[in-house]
Amino acid sequence: MKGNIVVGQSGGPTAVINSSVAGVYAAAKKLGVKKIYGMVHGIEGFLEDKMIDLAEYLDDETGIELLKRTPSAFLGSCRFKMPKIEGHEEVYEKIFEIMEKHDIECLFYAGGNDSMDTVKMLSDYAAAHNKPQRFMGVPKTIDNDLPVTDHCPGYGSAAKYIATSLKEIIRDNSSFGAKKPTICIVEIMGRNAGWLTAAAALAKGDDCEGCDAIYLPEKVFDIDQFVADVKDLAERKSSVVIAVSEGVKVADGRYVCEIGREVAVDAFGHKQMSGTAVMLAEKIAAETGLKTRAIEFSTLQRAATHLASLTDINEAFQVGHDAVMAAEEGKTGMMITLDRNGEDPYQCGTSAYDIHAIANVERKVPDEWITADGKGLTEGYEKYARPLIMGELRPLFVNGTPRHLVRK
Amino acid sequence: MKGNIVVGQSGGPTAVINSSVAGVYAAAKKLGVKKIYGMVHGIEGFLEDKMIDLAEYLDDETGIELLKRTPSAFLGSCRFKMPKIEGHEEVYEKIFEIMEKHDIECLFYAGGNDSMDTVKMLSDYAAAHNKPQRFMGVPKTIDNDLPVTDHCPGYGSAAKYIATSLKEIIRDNSSFGAKKPTICIVEIMGRNAGWLTAAAALAKGDDCEGCDAIYLPEKVFDIDQFVADVKDLAERKSSVVIAVSEGVKVADGRYVCEIGREVAVDAFGHKQMSGTAVMLAEKIAAETGLKTRAIEFSTLQRAATHLASLTDINEAFQVGHDAVMAAEEGKTGMMITLDRNGEDPYQCGTSAYDIHAIANVERKVPDEWITADGKGLTEGYEKYARPLIMGELRPLFVNGTPRHLVRK
Repeated sequence: MKGNIVVGQSGGPTAVINSSVAGVYAAAKKLGVKKIYGMVHGIEGFLEDKMIDLAEYLDDETGIELLKRTPSAFLGSCRFKMPKIEGHEEVYEKIFEIMEKHDIECLFYAGGNDSMDTVKMLSDYAAAHNKPQRFMGVPKTIDNDLPVTDHCPGYGSAAKYIATSLKEIIRDNSSFGAKKPTICIVEIMGRNAGWLTAAAALAKGDDCEGCDAIYLPEKVFDIDQFVADVKDLAERKSSVVIAVSEGVKVADGRYVCEIGREVAVDAFGHKQMSGTAVMLAEKIAAETGLKTRAIEFSTLQRAATHLASLTDINEAFQVGHDAVMAAEEGKTGMMITLDRNGEDPYQCGTSAYDIHAIANVERKVPDEWITADGKGLTEGYEKYARPLIMGELRPLFVNGTPRHLVRK
Repeated sequence: MKGNIVVGQSGGPTAVINSSVAGVYAAAKKLGVKKIYGMVHGIEGFLEDKMIDLAEYLDDETGIELLKRTPSAFLGSCRFKMPKIEGHEEVYEKIFEIMEKHDIECLFYAGGNDSMDTVKMLSDYAAAHNKPQRFMGVPKTIDNDLPVTDHCPGYGSAAKYIATSLKEIIRDNSSFGAKKPTICIVEIMGRNAGWLTAAAALAKGDDCEGCDAIYLPEKVFDIDQFVADVKDLAERKSSVVIAVSEGVKVADGRYVCEIGREVAVDAFGHKQMSGTAVMLAEKIAAETGLKTRAIEFSTLQRAATHLASLTDINEAFQVGHDAVMAAEEGKTGMMITLDRNGEDPYQCGTSAYDIHAIANVERKVPDEWITADGKGLTEGYEKYARPLIMGELRPLFVNGTPRHLVRK
């Protein structure tokens, strides 16, 4: 690589998205790239020429290690939707102009579906206009809903947080030996795909009875059946803990959290979810008189780097690293995928895959991994997901809390 | 000690209440006590003669180490209020009868204010009826609101969880460089005392700007002033994170979470708090049009043993251990207190203190530790609290999640 490179982060943060920046940096440094820039707040900031020189932060190994342990987007993120090329050429020209100005040969963009669309549009524009610049996607999303790749960096750590926190909540909820159980309903992120909620299945083990029911958005949610299910559990158990996706929908297509109230919409037209557990807990309390508790894992499930999966951190690093290596080979308009090539022991490699087959495609939990009653996950899911939460990277604790790397 | 002993757990669990059981067990074993019983679900279970022999679980060192890493009440907890002696002698007689039946010489009870009341009532009954049995209180409460003791086991770990999670939330909330900030309101436990909410101050450090405001229940909460405060912050900042106690009250004495809805009440007459952050986030959204996010730490702040403070674990062990040693010396009707006797380095010893001065007394955050504007904590608080969150005890991870010890 003769020119410089730039890396950006986009969309909702994850616990390990910064490891991918570390991976990009490490590979580029190895290749002797002169300037390794970081976009401040993704393409949105890049359009205003906002960049930092990553060497300022990462030129010693402590910087890299701290970056791996820092949650959220170190570079700053954005939710900027690239306009379609036709009629908006000036946006694209601006980006190429800034790239030329800084002698940037390759642009690396870490994100989920929407961000891969940005990579696609930019590489399409380059192809159509004979531009030499290259564009590579680095997968990142706790939602685990990108196609082609076996799984997405960010998912394993979110799954580990969910499984660990649920084990702790199940212990807590079962501490009282009341005649009537407390019904604890835990709301987990995932607008359309149930991958994160599925991770609730990983709480179960020799030392934990697991959740009593897990409701994914892949199945139609029947509120009356839900109330009946809970009543039945309450008859038999002294503690009931239920995991439910924020994205569960009733038969007429409405989200459960939409019932009886208005829901805000973001720049991509996505509804701002929240309140599913509260709504269901109030429903159960009203219909059964049982004590209920609603818990939302909220942003902590994507930000709890103190509990990140080492497997996930390493893979996030790897996809960043390998995106640079693929670009070095001249590739563009592709995303790095994770390819599982061994089960016992678990092994995973990477490939580069055409971004057109990836952008805007959403992968859901396959039907064969959801139990017949629609309230749990099969062993197939367990076999798929368990390796992704394995291992830990101990935080560097300073004054009692994990130390992070932050931009000046 | 010639007879046997029994230990029970009561009230809301903490991340380290099981370390106190480990401490009781270790000391009693050292003294050669024959049978070390655990009440299943506190006094409520004890009244039904429900006990386990702790040796079955703790007779090897791995058991003790796993117990220290297990959240919630290993023995099971209860919220049983002892009736007053007069007119309810049969309840007291039943307890002494069961103690005699199992040759139990001392009863140890780990809990907060309500549980210390149980210890007081039982020791008062023994004194009035010339009973030889002894009763010792072991302090435990995330609320940190017991008097006399410098602090309460359970508080340090909850504070560490709150500080760490807030650091992660602050990074997450600041990842978007939007022109208008997202207002994130985090609700923290604490009905009347603001100790847990105060721990939000510990998020601040070299690598974290900290919370923008911290509202304790010790100060009257003015909703209009709150809205004005947030508007002012939103003008100046690209990310706003605010910590608020679930127990904040407006001038007329109503809890903020009570405004506009009914609130359930538990066996002790305590209101079931929740919904303060949601209410305030909705208020801010309606009045400013800003994007808001409400986060409730919920039971995780008392259950996240994976992030417990080592100082707290060791002190929880110590108060359990020293309660046995005090009983061995013939003491009864007392609670073990933590006495800070060194600042740099931090050092803490224990004493035994008359339970009558402790039961039912609630200690609040002293006024001199709250900043003049009522929205933050002083250095005095920082100096007090920081040592309590220091150190970690690495969980034993099995299959990607922390292993716990559970009753068969």
